[in-house]
Amino acid sequence: MISVAIVGTGNVGFHLNNELAKSDDLNVIQFNSRSQNSLTDFDIAILAVSDDAISEVSKNIESKLVVHTSGTTDINLLKNSHNKGVFYPLQSFSKQKEVDFSHVPLCIEAENKEDLELLETLGKSLKSKTYIVNSEQRKHLHLAAVFANNFSNHMFTLAEEICNKNNVPFEVLKPLIQETTKKIETLSPAKAQTGPAARGDQKTIENHLELLDTYQQELYLKITQSIKKYG
Amino acid sequence: MISVAIVGTGNVGFHLNNELAKSDDLNVIQFNSRSQNSLTDFDIAILAVSDDAISEVSKNIESKLVVHTSGTTDINLLKNSHNKGVFYPLQSFSKQKEVDFSHVPLCIEAENKEDLELLETLGKSLKSKTYIVNSEQRKHLHLAAVFANNFSNHMFTLAEEICNKNNVPFEVLKPLIQETTKKIETLSPAKAQTGPAARGDQKTIENHLELLDTYQQELYLKITQSIKKYG
Repeated sequence: MISVAIVGTGNVGFHLNNELAKSDDLNVIQFNSRSQNSLTDFDIAILAVSDDAISEVSKNIESKLVVHTSGTTDINLLKNSHNKGVFYPLQSFSKQKEVDFSHVPLCIEAENKEDLELLETLGKSLKSKTYIVNSEQRKHLHLAAVFANNFSNHMFTLAEEICNKNNVPFEVLKPLIQETTKKIETLSPAKAQTGPAARGDQKTIENHLELLDTYQQELYLKITQSIKKYG
Repeated sequence: MISVAIVGTGNVGFHLNNELAKSDDLNVIQFNSRSQNSLTDFDIAILAVSDDAISEVSKNIESKLVVHTSGTTDINLLKNSHNKGVFYPLQSFSKQKEVDFSHVPLCIEAENKEDLELLETLGKSLKSKTYIVNSEQRKHLHLAAVFANNFSNHMFTLAEEICNKNNVPFEVLKPLIQETTKKIETLSPAKAQTGPAARGDQKTIENHLELLDTYQQELYLKITQSIKKYG
């Protein structure tokens, strides 16, 4: 029986606790991050707290292994005296929506093989796929996620903005958006790239620029250049 | 029985012919765009030819109604002597892949109610949803589609680029990408926006900038500014 303390009651802590508690092989207890418990009796403490709080909260925890769940925080910012690790679920969570952990990749890091195996065991309980990712890689992965998620979503926002301004329902574009992301399940996005920038269709690019304000034109040109550069 | 001529043997012509030919209410014949036929015996001729060829090809066609299938071309660039219209399928096509037209929104335009109804009938045969969109709206919609499809796909390309450079498999990001587009099925993308730019997390933004080259930094900043502006 593996004893697991989950510290933090935010989105990540909430869903991890919900899911890990289902396993017969784990004994899971959730704590508020402000509780003064040193958690000495636990094999692992998972700190699902805000990035800024990781160092401070970790100082007082005596579990054999302490891991944080942050995409941007170095493993060495953990200040506990025993083993350290990372258990980073790369997905967007909201409390209202149930999480299917089989669609949540887990990026794990630890200082030794035994701890990595323990993190992999937890991953298996969640039915998640685990990836060994060190702190340096994880920083870049988090940046890549901003492009893949936040920035792509903003492209949808700008598309919606254009639709709204011209009284066209945004839903007309939704099947195209779904097709775009379906394509890259099997094809590299660089290879899936289409459109005026990819085929060097300068006439269409100029027609588009005429429809945009100065601010949007700069963004359009910047991305068009980037497509020409990276394919 | 409605008689339909499809002019053009590219992707759009190929798939339209395949699908419309299944209907018992339509009599469909496909022509090469270089054939010299005036197509006088057809209720409708659908020009699935390249944008540049629309005016030239339309000149010689005598069908009661001639429509083009282009997102960027004004209805008035049709040079036939009878009625004009547009039948624009807003989706990305490739010849290798079968098209499910129930996921292909059709943007239609015509000069009178009767012609619009005919285009709606064709839409129904395809099981597509039809939207009445005039030439001015269609131009903007095509621009919006570039943001929603081409530009979002490029964000995936940049994410993949970062992953490759740091020896992290891009597939780690795929569930997040699927979740991003699933979210906007029910939520406006402006409301679904998350990430450092949306929450004004300047520290993370600066950490990210340090990981990018000058060229990527400019793009990152431009999109970050745009998120702050448009939400």
